[in-house]
Amino acid sequence: MKILVLGGDGYCGWPTSLHLSDAGHDVVIVDNFVRRQIDHELGVQSLTPVVGLTERLRAWRETGGRPVGLEVGDLLDWDFVAGLVERHRPEAVVHFAEQRAAPYSMISRGHAIYTQHNNVIGNLNVLFAINEFAPDCHLVKLGTMGEYGTPNIDIEEGFIEIEHNGRKDTLPYPKQPGSWYHLSKVHDSHNIMFACKIWGMRATDLNQGVVYGTVTPQTERNERLVNRFDYDEVFGTVLNRFCIQAAIGHPLTVYGEGGQTRGFLDIRDTVRCIELAIENPAERGEFRVFNQFTEKFSVRQLAGMVSDAAAKLGVETRIEKQPNPRVESEEHYYNAKHTRLLDLGLEPHYLSDALLDSLLNIAVKHRGRADLDAVNPRVDWRTGRRSLLEEVDEPAYPSTL
Amino acid sequence: MKILVLGGDGYCGWPTSLHLSDAGHDVVIVDNFVRRQIDHELGVQSLTPVVGLTERLRAWRETGGRPVGLEVGDLLDWDFVAGLVERHRPEAVVHFAEQRAAPYSMISRGHAIYTQHNNVIGNLNVLFAINEFAPDCHLVKLGTMGEYGTPNIDIEEGFIEIEHNGRKDTLPYPKQPGSWYHLSKVHDSHNIMFACKIWGMRATDLNQGVVYGTVTPQTERNERLVNRFDYDEVFGTVLNRFCIQAAIGHPLTVYGEGGQTRGFLDIRDTVRCIELAIENPAERGEFRVFNQFTEKFSVRQLAGMVSDAAAKLGVETRIEKQPNPRVESEEHYYNAKHTRLLDLGLEPHYLSDALLDSLLNIAVKHRGRADLDAVNPRVDWRTGRRSLLEEVDEPAYPSTL
Repeated sequence: MKILVLGGDGYCGWPTSLHLSDAGHDVVIVDNFVRRQIDHELGVQSLTPVVGLTERLRAWRETGGRPVGLEVGDLLDWDFVAGLVERHRPEAVVHFAEQRAAPYSMISRGHAIYTQHNNVIGNLNVLFAINEFAPDCHLVKLGTMGEYGTPNIDIEEGFIEIEHNGRKDTLPYPKQPGSWYHLSKVHDSHNIMFACKIWGMRATDLNQGVVYGTVTPQTERNERLVNRFDYDEVFGTVLNRFCIQAAIGHPLTVYGEGGQTRGFLDIRDTVRCIELAIENPAERGEFRVFNQFTEKFSVRQLAGMVSDAAAKLGVETRIEKQPNPRVESEEHYYNAKHTRLLDLGLEPHYLSDALLDSLLNIAVKHRGRADLDAVNPRVDWRTGRRSLLEEVDEPAYPSTL
Repeated sequence: MKILVLGGDGYCGWPTSLHLSDAGHDVVIVDNFVRRQIDHELGVQSLTPVVGLTERLRAWRETGGRPVGLEVGDLLDWDFVAGLVERHRPEAVVHFAEQRAAPYSMISRGHAIYTQHNNVIGNLNVLFAINEFAPDCHLVKLGTMGEYGTPNIDIEEGFIEIEHNGRKDTLPYPKQPGSWYHLSKVHDSHNIMFACKIWGMRATDLNQGVVYGTVTPQTERNERLVNRFDYDEVFGTVLNRFCIQAAIGHPLTVYGEGGQTRGFLDIRDTVRCIELAIENPAERGEFRVFNQFTEKFSVRQLAGMVSDAAAKLGVETRIEKQPNPRVESEEHYYNAKHTRLLDLGLEPHYLSDALLDSLLNIAVKHRGRADLDAVNPRVDWRTGRRSLLEEVDEPAYPSTL
């Protein structure tokens, strides 16, 4: 199958591209390298030493991988997007190419607007290009479990049957996103739902939980195939951050009470979920939503698990509460459904195993590259400022806004 | 009270500005005149002869009105928005300044993206400016009843209590918007809700129904104060269009079965609702939603009412079904709550009276200016093309997209 992976140089996009290529698909990576640029803006880098994309692709071919194509450009550039879809006529488009860090979107007005503009308009261009040049193509779009927030009722997969004043309807699940970034994904979801309705587009919205890990069977084949591992306060998700904190002997920093509960999944399950969605496409006109995670944990639980696992490696860790820079409930109900991908055949990796075999060991292996400063929270949700850095009002990448 | 009216030169903004000025407030109109520019793009004009804004403001002073200020600029220009709010430190901002026509947003990709970009990013700039320079200011934002779509259960005012699997929560009402324009308003609502949560902003989201009429007590004082009256297929709402069709002896054109039911209100109630919202501001941190309409009608009912009223003026009309260019249900349940503005003291004008005293008579008075071609639907929801015009891919106003 011909598949475009938008954002194929990123944390989820790169291992997904290799996984799909390995499964026999014709993969073309599309990227504008803005994620690498943001590393320079924030003054941080992946814990794992990531080589350039051209070098990565060369390594993939050298290790016997099916050739993966490359298209460099920006989804905000309609001529680029239109030409891309027209030339390749893909059967599936996997869309990872959005600014994906909630804290990044909270740094300043400029960062908030960059995030919503880049994500919403880029996605609109993708929708229009598919409709015009490859209307049968299946869009597999990465959303986030954060679209739902933390309601006091069970979270369903995208839609909920509501009985109200004696009548019933199945409606889009109400959204309570918690950052300018999460909001951008809610906007995307609404836009895609509408495209399916008016054009008969087929789309799967994957509301992904917090991803952890870095290794997949493909990225392990050669060290130049290594995946990113972000542990900084802006792009590093909580579990990756705990692992590197443990590895370098820093206390595990829990924001507030640590009762914040979320869905999590291993990067090896991310790539498999994408494949399952592609192999079982949505119908024409169907907008379906899968909640893409395998286990739920509170931040407090995670800290405990990392601490225990580290002890088995002979590393002692301490858990430290920090004032919460975010505006969020620190103790709340959380019960989110996630059966649709399991029904399609997902066989989850579990955190208890992954911690020792592909998380802490990676963190320990590369701890010499870790920058302690980078893990401390500096973006404040209320003031929208990175308090310990010089004030930045605009993102560093080129922008016309 | 110092009040900024964003989009104060437009169909709702102009009479609102005069109404608030007449009520003793210090009003500053903010506008970029893009609505006038779009008339040129579409080759249409207001049925009523509208003079320039400077001339309008001069006429207002000459008729004894309290001086109304003017700031010309674009909400996409952060320096302009920031300077505006910093200089005026308003107690209320009324935000009408968005592209407001569903059909316009459906003309082409360029029009869809213009609409979402202009509305969403402009509104974000307003939010950030209020938070930074006038954090106690009350934002009164115009949304639309179209955010809800036509669910098969009662529509509540912004939030709904949901009981699910034995638990309960009050959550944002699910949204099913029916055009790229309606989607932009849904995006705005989510963004504003978040601003209230993280910054303690106070905001009222007015989900307005379809507005009809053109006359208010203030616009009647002098002919240079006359309000817009749009009857073209893009900006003319259904009732205004029926009135001009009746006045010029054209059949009343009903899309499809005509069972599409919506909430409606008189422009005289729009201006009063805004005043009520301002006089009874939201609390700090409160995001409240009012459904702003007074009566509901199906398109079929409206056609019948216009036809009957026209007969009383000695004008015979015929009702004609046309293929529906939109993707929407033509027969559906519709029961939307709208008690919150009534609770604050709104005394509605009713359509049965307005038809003869301020709608058909205006249409008849100005029918010599009517362009028959302009009322026929040319924007197709499915193909996103204006079929009878030369194909336009990009909007005519300056845009960097």
